[in-house]
Amino acid sequence: MSLDLSIDDLEDLARGAAFLGTGGGGDPHIGRLVAGEAFARHGAPRILAPADLPDDALVCSIAGFGAPTVQVEKLIRGDEVMAALDRLEAHLGRRIDALLPAEIGGGNSLLPLAAGAMRGLPVIDGDGMGRAFPELQMNSFSLHGIRATPLVVIDEYHNSAVINAVTDKVAEDMTRALAIQMGLRVFIACFPMDGARMKAAVVPGTLSAALAVGRAIRQGRRGGDPVGSLVDCLRTLPPYGGGAILFDGKITDLERRTADGFASGLARVAALDGAGEAEVLFQNENLVARIGDRVLAIVPDLICIVDRDTGEPIPTQSLRYGQRIRIVAVPAPPQLRSDAALRVMGPVAFGLDHPYLPMRG
Amino acid sequence: MSLDLSIDDLEDLARGAAFLGTGGGGDPHIGRLVAGEAFARHGAPRILAPADLPDDALVCSIAGFGAPTVQVEKLIRGDEVMAALDRLEAHLGRRIDALLPAEIGGGNSLLPLAAGAMRGLPVIDGDGMGRAFPELQMNSFSLHGIRATPLVVIDEYHNSAVINAVTDKVAEDMTRALAIQMGLRVFIACFPMDGARMKAAVVPGTLSAALAVGRAIRQGRRGGDPVGSLVDCLRTLPPYGGGAILFDGKITDLERRTADGFASGLARVAALDGAGEAEVLFQNENLVARIGDRVLAIVPDLICIVDRDTGEPIPTQSLRYGQRIRIVAVPAPPQLRSDAALRVMGPVAFGLDHPYLPMRG
Repeated sequence: MSLDLSIDDLEDLARGAAFLGTGGGGDPHIGRLVAGEAFARHGAPRILAPADLPDDALVCSIAGFGAPTVQVEKLIRGDEVMAALDRLEAHLGRRIDALLPAEIGGGNSLLPLAAGAMRGLPVIDGDGMGRAFPELQMNSFSLHGIRATPLVVIDEYHNSAVINAVTDKVAEDMTRALAIQMGLRVFIACFPMDGARMKAAVVPGTLSAALAVGRAIRQGRRGGDPVGSLVDCLRTLPPYGGGAILFDGKITDLERRTADGFASGLARVAALDGAGEAEVLFQNENLVARIGDRVLAIVPDLICIVDRDTGEPIPTQSLRYGQRIRIVAVPAPPQLRSDAALRVMGPVAFGLDHPYLPMRG
Repeated sequence: MSLDLSIDDLEDLARGAAFLGTGGGGDPHIGRLVAGEAFARHGAPRILAPADLPDDALVCSIAGFGAPTVQVEKLIRGDEVMAALDRLEAHLGRRIDALLPAEIGGGNSLLPLAAGAMRGLPVIDGDGMGRAFPELQMNSFSLHGIRATPLVVIDEYHNSAVINAVTDKVAEDMTRALAIQMGLRVFIACFPMDGARMKAAVVPGTLSAALAVGRAIRQGRRGGDPVGSLVDCLRTLPPYGGGAILFDGKITDLERRTADGFASGLARVAALDGAGEAEVLFQNENLVARIGDRVLAIVPDLICIVDRDTGEPIPTQSLRYGQRIRIVAVPAPPQLRSDAALRVMGPVAFGLDHPYLPMRG
């Protein structure tokens, strides 16, 4: 079943992708604007189910890379994204046949769509995690031995580097060092792979899922319960099949820092009925929600903060003191829950002292 | 007149290059060992006067990059240097015909000789500055519009990046950020240029000059006055034509830090006759020698510290409390003394408050 996307879907898609981005993955307003302009000029790209890409086709990801706090002002030109793809093609010595989101997020789901429109390439309905993660090696492709490199990193002035590294973690460290030097406003073209390997590793259907989530929030607003509508949608939505409201409250404290190339911090949330206080730790994305030492949800499960009344997802960089919010959790796709996956993107990968507590679907 | 180099010349060459490296440019002992092994295995490379390279030949530089304090333990394997040249050739889509030192220094004069031996390529008798400088854009090639990029940076594990940047200063910043991440033990292949452009920009004859300097010091030891022999040699040596002992004393204080990817600091030197104290500031290379506010010599002129009795050049990373040393100054080659050159590699480029005070030949 293939998705037929139009410019009118972009608002829902950006909203849903921002939700599934669990606080990261880029700004949805900018993502929607960039994709909207590209769709208006060039038409929407064709969306392919993973199975529909030929096994020998070459597909790669294109993404914004850095700290969300800095990227808010960016994503506009698009020629740097084209240049990144040009340089990756030159390095590989062949043309890229299709694009694939590296992660789901308000920016990073929409950017491949914009690039697909500009370049006349189809975009795969799927990604490498079914959520967003802060580091390059945290995804299903790397777990399947598909390498992030050769990777092109480029800034708005077209300063660029083609990185080859012995592991994706080293590639992450090199790309992060360059991104910090280049002002944390860069794009990457990465994970070049053939169709056969993509099919074995992809988390499928996540553009469709993001669109469904965004629609459920919007439609729920008519009935006055967008968060209820969202949770209903999530319960049967592949690849998640679950969703629950963990906490309902008001943000009473925020600590943030942009350090080592990440936007990290924590938000404290007081229950509206006065019964307790939760906190959410984040590193670009939300990592854990807990009350004291009791974990409510933890990576790789999705921890999403939405406006309590409108259901609008709130990226970490847009959290503000006094906001009334709900914390919604969603089970991670099965690919992210294996022992091998948990070593790379579970609590231990973020230095969290809690064991993984899988949320039930 | 072309230079005919043998393995027996390497000790003199490394010593002389370390002197002309003005405190930086890599460790001469390691440079000599690496070149010695390569010469023993593969034979010495052919040395070409710049004029003897065909105008349409492709030449590039290969160098160690980072902080001298860290590089002391490195430079041994050589396969990373071959891999860097392979990657630059792949990126350019053509073979490199000759190698060229980027700078003069105990490591960075010897490394292209080692690489030339290993790869069977001739090496040009000349470089981009006739001394060493800490940053990529500080050289005669950049001044002539020859770009450092495309530049390959590689570490001992063969993690690499091919950098393209809009200016050589941006390339410096990107390469430095990567080098810091990679542990300040990296090599670069850079400044790909054709023979015609090389001839217009090169500082010629500096391998020959380094060999002459190293010989003069060794031969002077027989007569008991190696520093006198060195200064005599410098007075008529192209491209310098000058040399003088500025100060004679004992190191009484050393401040060092390895920060921002450089080895920086200062040495205080008390006169042996008790009459005053000089200080030498360095950033990888020695930048200024002064007594109080009175400048004795300043970049781009060469400020070289040698052992007072043996004349052995002392790189900044080998300066020690209590050493008895002489500070020798040498006029910079004319290419480095133009107004345009002084903006890039004169006192102002290092944030020094003194005007350039050209040393007379």
